This record gives sequence, C-alpha cells and structure tokens, in this order.
Amino acid sequence: MHTALCDTLGIEHPIIGFTPSEHVAAAISKAGGLGVLGCVRFNDADELDRVLDWMDEHTGGRPYGVDVVMPAKVPTEGTQVDLDKLIPEEHKAFVERTLKDLGVPELPEDAEQRAGVLGWLHSVARSHVEVALRHPIKLIANALGSPPVDVIEQAHAHGVPVAALAGKAEHARRHVRNGVDFVVAQGYEAGGHTGEIGSMVLLPEIVDAVDAPVLAAGGIGSGRQVAAALALGAAGVWTGSLWLATEEYLQTMPASAAMQTALVRATSSDTVRTRIYTGKPARLLKTRWTQAWAAPDAPEPLPMPLQNLLVSPAHNRLHETNDPELVSMPAGQIIGRIDRVRPVAEIIEDLLSGYEEALARLEKTR
Amino acid sequence: MHTALCDTLGIEHPIIGFTPSEHVAAAISKAGGLGVLGCVRFNDADELDRVLDWMDEHTGGRPYGVDVVMPAKVPTEGTQVDLDKLIPEEHKAFVERTLKDLGVPELPEDAEQRAGVLGWLHSVARSHVEVALRHPIKLIANALGSPPVDVIEQAHAHGVPVAALAGKAEHARRHVRNGVDFVVAQGYEAGGHTGEIGSMVLLPEIVDAVDAPVLAAGGIGSGRQVAAALALGAAGVWTGSLWLATEEYLQTMPASAAMQTALVRATSSDTVRTRIYTGKPARLLKTRWTQAWAAPDAPEPLPMPLQNLLVSPAHNRLHETNDPELVSMPAGQIIGRIDRVRPVAEIIEDLLSGYEEALARLEKTR
Repeated sequence: MHTALCDTLGIEHPIIGFTPSEHVAAAISKAGGLGVLGCVRFNDADELDRVLDWMDEHTGGRPYGVDVVMPAKVPTEGTQVDLDKLIPEEHKAFVERTLKDLGVPELPEDAEQRAGVLGWLHSVARSHVEVALRHPIKLIANALGSPPVDVIEQAHAHGVPVAALAGKAEHARRHVRNGVDFVVAQGYEAGGHTGEIGSMVLLPEIVDAVDAPVLAAGGIGSGRQVAAALALGAAGVWTGSLWLATEEYLQTMPASAAMQTALVRATSSDTVRTRIYTGKPARLLKTRWTQAWAAPDAPEPLPMPLQNLLVSPAHNRLHETNDPELVSMPAGQIIGRIDRVRPVAEIIEDLLSGYEEALARLEKTR
Repeated sequence: MHTALCDTLGIEHPIIGFTPSEHVAAAISKAGGLGVLGCVRFNDADELDRVLDWMDEHTGGRPYGVDVVMPAKVPTEGTQVDLDKLIPEEHKAFVERTLKDLGVPELPEDAEQRAGVLGWLHSVARSHVEVALRHPIKLIANALGSPPVDVIEQAHAHGVPVAALAGKAEHARRHVRNGVDFVVAQGYEAGGHTGEIGSMVLLPEIVDAVDAPVLAAGGIGSGRQVAAALALGAAGVWTGSLWLATEEYLQTMPASAAMQTALVRATSSDTVRTRIYTGKPARLLKTRWTQAWAAPDAPEPLPMPLQNLLVSPAHNRLHETNDPELVSMPAGQIIGRIDRVRPVAEIIEDLLSGYEEALARLEKTR
C-alpha cells in the first residue's frame, strides 16, 4: 500500500491517524502511518509543548503531525468568565436538570476545569500552532475547514504542509485557493464535525474538484475500506474512531475504560449527528446524554464556542461516572465493527492485510 | 468486471439497474447489465403484463428483473376511497395550501388518477408478482426489505431468485433467514427508501453478516464507485438515480424533461431524506415541495400507504407544471455528478472504463 503521499510525508503507509492521545499518535507513527495529535484538549500551550517533547522522544524519528480546531472566521473570543455571560440561563438550567435526571454527581470545585475547554478558542488554537511549529511536525491539520491564511503561511514558512476538512466540494476548492495542501474529505459517516454527503459520493467529487491530494475520512476502519477509498481516488486515508479502542489510548487517558466499553458495545446505528458537542454538526456516540438533547424539551444548541463552554464541565461530570451509557465522545459509524481493545500496531497490520485481500479480490474480477 | 453474480444471473457485468422505465430497463439489459423494472407505477396488473410483453420483445433474450414494493407486514389495505377516509383533514388542507402557495394549478378531474397510487398497496404488489412470474424474469426485488415468505416461495417455485433491500445488518440477516437470495445493501446516500448508515460502513457490515451475495446500493454512479463497492465485498452494484437522466427514460415518460433538468442542475447537497413521499424515510430531490414539508407549520407525514395516497395526486399536479423546482422525485446523492442526459449504453461504457482505471490505480499502490 504505497501512494505518492507516502513520499511527500515520509511515511510507509498512507494511513493518517488522528487521536487526542500522544501514546496512540506515537504508536501510529512508529507502525509506519502518520500519527496526528489533537491539540484541543490542551488549555495551556506549555502543556502541549511538554507533550510534543514527549512525542519527539517516543516516535523514533518517524514523522507525526498535529490537529488544531480553528474556524476561518474568528468566533466569539474572550476568557471563559466573559464568555459564560453569553450563555442563556435556559441552557444552563437544562444541563443541570439533565445531569440531575441522569444521576450524575457534581465534582469537587477544582476538578471542573480538567478538560480542554479553552482549546476551542481561536487565540488558544493559534498558540497551539506556534508551539507545534517549534517541533519537527510534518503536518498541521485543521479540524474545521481552512485555517486563516496567515496561519497557513506561517506553517509553510516552517516547511509544514496544512490539511483541512471538507464536507462539500465547494469547501475543498476554497481551502486549496487559501493555500491548503491536503484536503480531508470528511464523509457523513465520520466522527466529529461532519456534513451530509456520504463518503462514497463525497470523495470522488472532491478528488475531481481540487488539484491537491485528498485524504478519505469517514467510514475507514478496515483494509477493505482503505482499498475503497483509494479506488475512489484518495491519496490516503484519515482515520479517527479506530484509535479510541486501543491499549495506548488508556496510557494517556487511564479513566477511559467506560468509553471503550461503550465503543465495543455500540453498533453502527449507535451514533448521532448533532450540534450539542461544539455548536456545529458533529457525529457522537449515542448515549443517554445525546438522547436527552434530542428530547422535545431540549433547547437548541448554542453557536461555537459557547456550546463547548456550556457542555464541557458536564462532559467532565459524565466522564467521572465511568458509565458507558453516559459517555460524551465524538465517534464515527465504523465503531460498529470495534469488538475489542487492541494495540495500535495490530490495527495497522489488519489494515494492511485487509487491503491486500481486497486488491486480490478485485484482480479476480478481470 | 466479472463476478460470480454474472454467472448466477446470466449477465455480462455485475451492474443491476433499477428504473421505472421499460425502455431504460431493456437498454441496461441489452448493454450487459440487469435491467430491473419498477412496478409501483402500475395501478393495474394487466398494464404491467403488456409492458412485460414489450420487455420480452425488446431485450433480445437478455435477462431482466422486476421490482415491487411490498412491506413484510401487510399495512392498511383497501380501495383508494376507503383509505382516503383515514387521511386527516389537516394533511389534506396542508397539501392544498402548499400547492396553492407554490402556484400549482389543478388538473382536469380525469387526469388525477394517472400515477400509480395503488401500486403501493399490498394486494396490488401481489398481483404484480403474479403477472411478472408469467414472464421470463430473472429477479424479483422488493424495494422494502423481505417480502412475505409465501411470496419468496412462489418466486422460488418459478426458479426466480429474490432480492431485498437492507439498511442495517440485522435486516439483512432477517431477509436471508426468510429465504431472500440477494441482499441490496442500501446506504444512506441512496435515492428512495434508505437508512442512516453510509455505504462505506454498511456494505462490508452486511457482507460479513450474511451468507448471500450482496449488491451495493447508494452512491454508485461511476466506475470508481463500482470498484469501491467490489473492494468492500459486494458481488455487484445496484444503481438507480443514474438512469433517470437518460434518453431512454424520455421514451417511456416523455414529460420528464423538467425532472431531468432538475437532476442536471442539482449538486450532491440537493437531496433530502424525508418521510413525505411514502411515509417511510426516503431520499428525494430537494425542491420547493420538499422544503414546504420541512417548514415548521408542516404536519408530520402519515404512515405508508396513507402518505402515498395523500401526495400522489399532488405529485401529478407538480409534474404537470414542468417546473424543475417543483419536481417530486426519489434521487440519491450521486445526482451531483449528472451533467447531461445520455444514452444508457454510454453510461454503462463509462462504468466499465472507470472501473478499469480505478483497478489500474490500485495496482500501482503495490
């Protein structure tokens, strides 16, 4: 499984793996893919800096990248205290009532700020980019379309290519006009922010729309799916949900056993596309929390980043329950095929052998 | 492009083409695929009989099939007059008000019954099966999951295999337990009745779930997509929207130019999955009519077959406007790639050459 992308990025297999865990990212890179570390969990750029130091030590010189969340238009900005004032009381009351109904206890005062609420702010995402460019990263991906043009220029000045997500061909064209180097075609099946066009349709549409390598995202969890993506014209694949149920994920986030149990239990019907996580449509694991927001009495989600600020403390409380039915986690439809927690290297091996089997099957049709 | 399915069905290419037009179905079969004629437009089984006589004369001995709409559970049954009484006044008033708002004129009294309203009734679908089995058909497909077991047995007694649509692996397993021979894995991208799981995820899931050949439906409009489907494990592809913008379609339905104009204009974002066509979720071309039903004042769609009975006369009126913005038509996301009206044989040629190109690209990754 070798494409031009492998040469461009200096990797062995055209498999990009997005993950919030440095242990997972390093393992993907060491197995010949490109591990891409999600930065949104870092409130503080110094913390990211330390984790990237760890990456530099633990990837054995293999390439890796980072992923930031940066809307092209700067949204509401400010400190968390300022922004809290913009959240309607109705929404705060709904969250409190729902957590109470679900039997979710409060946390000690000092635990409330654990998760990366501020990583969703534009200014914080910029500080992530600045810190990351001090490390030997091989890719900056933006989980929300084109980053601002000056950020792209800043990355290029360091010789680092930029990838951006697109859910429509017109978005992909705009990204490339802005200077983006790789387009991640994010199909409807994908976890996290995603549009309404299925990968089977979206991917060739974007491949034909832009003169840039396209990575297939959404629905990629097996070698057969990698083969399908390359048949559709992708230069490589962008994977995410696949890496949540790994042994390495637990090394970074030891309290994730409930999330992993939920993924192993879930079928491909157990996700939902909703604005409740960030304010923009994103696919999440379906749980009692997402169901509460789908009820007729639930308020409309707020715009980004206010919805993040509203729900992040709730996510922390849900997380602490260790209850698989109360997990709040972006996840794609491929979670239906996750049946156990595995080491990263084993998953990469399966992708490679499944790819070869799919090619052999196709060759027999000649 | 040759799979075991070609031998089973006696066809040259594993391309099944569903269409309500006998001219299109015959052209698909003559080009080496399997044309499958949709029967729901026939109120009267004798009319279907005459059209199948025409098929027998115009397919040059090539295999063809038929497609009926038959829920496993018998829904509300009766004459149109009986059933009309079950439709709430609120719904009738909404339809009348909407047509008026859209500037759609009334039709002469005798024109109202033109379309196949009754084809959606279980008893009429059964008469379609009986008539079809008197012809040399090679496949009966049911556009709604398993048909009743006695219908499957009736088809098998005539040596005719049965295909059924599935939007989830559990549905596919049930169909095969009931005796269904082929499963059509209908991904989210598909036109008409469809579920929420994208083809990229659904197809391998169903391939692994059942010990029966699986046809990939949803998002198949190019040779690359056929290659992707076979890479994912499909025995062949099931296509539909692709055949709406053909010259042969106009031979059967001469007044379809507005529909074809709408398809040529549409992007892959111009479809919507809604219950307004049949009462079950189906993907349609997005028009001013579908938008009216998405408005906050619109009523909830009725169950099948009442919703069909409610909207069928409206569809006839919309059709007569010859306005591309007022078409009511099931269509999948691949319509974004339809850029002109073409002959069926040219589309088949493109599928074959696109398939070969995709395979050649994949082989280079070795």
